[in-house]
Amino acid sequence: MHAMLIDADKELVWSEVPDPVRKENEVIIEVHAAALNRADLLQRDGKYPSPPGWPEWMGLEVAGVVLKAPAQSRWRTGDKVCALLGGGGYAEKVAVPADMVLPVPKGLSMEEAAAIPEAFATSYLNLCLEGGMKGGDTVLIQAGASGLGIAAIQLAKDLGAKVMTTVGSEEKASFVRTLGADIIVNRKKDDLAAAMDKHPVDIALDCVVGAGMGACVEKMARGGRWIVIATLAGARTEIDMNVFFRKGLKLIGSTLRSRTSEMKAKILSDLEAKLWDKLSSGKIRSVIYRTLPMAKAEEAHGILEKQQNLGKVVLTLEKTKT
Amino acid sequence: MHAMLIDADKELVWSEVPDPVRKENEVIIEVHAAALNRADLLQRDGKYPSPPGWPEWMGLEVAGVVLKAPAQSRWRTGDKVCALLGGGGYAEKVAVPADMVLPVPKGLSMEEAAAIPEAFATSYLNLCLEGGMKGGDTVLIQAGASGLGIAAIQLAKDLGAKVMTTVGSEEKASFVRTLGADIIVNRKKDDLAAAMDKHPVDIALDCVVGAGMGACVEKMARGGRWIVIATLAGARTEIDMNVFFRKGLKLIGSTLRSRTSEMKAKILSDLEAKLWDKLSSGKIRSVIYRTLPMAKAEEAHGILEKQQNLGKVVLTLEKTKT
Repeated sequence: MHAMLIDADKELVWSEVPDPVRKENEVIIEVHAAALNRADLLQRDGKYPSPPGWPEWMGLEVAGVVLKAPAQSRWRTGDKVCALLGGGGYAEKVAVPADMVLPVPKGLSMEEAAAIPEAFATSYLNLCLEGGMKGGDTVLIQAGASGLGIAAIQLAKDLGAKVMTTVGSEEKASFVRTLGADIIVNRKKDDLAAAMDKHPVDIALDCVVGAGMGACVEKMARGGRWIVIATLAGARTEIDMNVFFRKGLKLIGSTLRSRTSEMKAKILSDLEAKLWDKLSSGKIRSVIYRTLPMAKAEEAHGILEKQQNLGKVVLTLEKTKT
Repeated sequence: MHAMLIDADKELVWSEVPDPVRKENEVIIEVHAAALNRADLLQRDGKYPSPPGWPEWMGLEVAGVVLKAPAQSRWRTGDKVCALLGGGGYAEKVAVPADMVLPVPKGLSMEEAAAIPEAFATSYLNLCLEGGMKGGDTVLIQAGASGLGIAAIQLAKDLGAKVMTTVGSEEKASFVRTLGADIIVNRKKDDLAAAMDKHPVDIALDCVVGAGMGACVEKMARGGRWIVIATLAGARTEIDMNVFFRKGLKLIGSTLRSRTSEMKAKILSDLEAKLWDKLSSGKIRSVIYRTLPMAKAEEAHGILEKQQNLGKVVLTLEKTKT
């Protein structure tokens, strides 16, 4: 089969690689669509390798058709599925543990399904399992128009939270308003710390950080939890630990990729129970910004690099049948 | 009765105040000994007032004799007890919920018993409940020769952890070695971050902070938890959030005083079950640095201010009978 390798110049090269060999409890998926994540850019840059046991090439989520499945699993050849991966999605086929696979929600395309697992699993892991979000909480979602932000806003609203979110343009502000965001902070002209002073936040989901993060952490509500999952605007920030301990705050560093397979399986199972019907009915949306063929992966990466996207970017592989 | 009030010049004045009125489920204790905590210095300075429902004067822990108790409680008039308070210990009597009272461990003096609740409850709350400490963990205890440090080192060793601790003198280093500390860092000459690089820490209990904290947090083991309970060496520190989220670290701000009565009651009940026999047998020690009469509270505060103490400082009230 073929997969998208990274050469010594960090160029993407569609290359012949060995077919995946199915291990016990694994499903082989013929990949029809692979969604992009910012982690792919880091991996391409050599800073975020695939964890042990996964292909070396990029790709954290796919949708496609089951080619082979364990007899005792819920999957049968021909099932339309999406899956969360530790790596290996930029390829024609991928082997994945059966419990990291979910059905394509009824009525959704392969592209829409491929764009679900990573963003919704990251949102659920961090807001619900790490953050303990409950109805009535005020939640800050940084980068609300990103693939992750769109999933997190919808999940938080669905569970009864009040949502504050940051965006980088008026176009993105208008869009996140349609998702139900209650307080929208335009980073280009508004002050996040001032907004948090007015609306103390219980949980923050932060992929941005930057030097100003510390001043915002101080504004949290008593008992607040600030969850960091990436550092797009820079990693170093100064925090006043006196305010921090007196308010009983928590700062939580978190990655989905490093979690055990058991925990990922639990997250996916919870997501299917809570969200799949709502994805089918359109109450919760998988928002695609752009779909490109795998051959244009370079162009697709460029969209994420420039933060142009409003929603997910998806790569497709041409198939005779879907 | 009398209590130690703080006047407008922050002077301590032993003053006539109304006797405590027993509310439902409360015990009235005749105070024989009241132990000092650094929080008392902050409270005296106007920076850490008693929480609602507690006397305005200082004092987070006492030992004494039960004067009155609810009929349905385990306590009877004349019982020798110690108690964890939200405030009000610097007085002849104090009213306290029955489930925040514990018996004086067999064989211990009133002074030794008064010095137990705050340090051991703080250690247990943070190491065990917040930090999830388990046998085999490497634990950093800052200020190992303080009243809190001595309790935390003994608790961690008793539960099978490996203990790294910081001290400010060779005398204190020798002392914490007798408590079982495995790795001793003398702040005056050793580098804590370098020691942590050699011995990655799973849990840190930090009452020190200071500008250097961020560089130490980065050295933690994957999944490490850094718990801040005070900021003796300064509050502001810069943290690299990139290392932080990739290692899945947690920074936890925590105070015992702000916890619910239910949680404090659970902590005390756990402590009695786990440690009271060991305190009676001498396997775990309540270490008193100095005992002074209540009239010398000013001098007692001076000892804590200068960080001269190796163990707890206790104030006593003269009684005709103990």
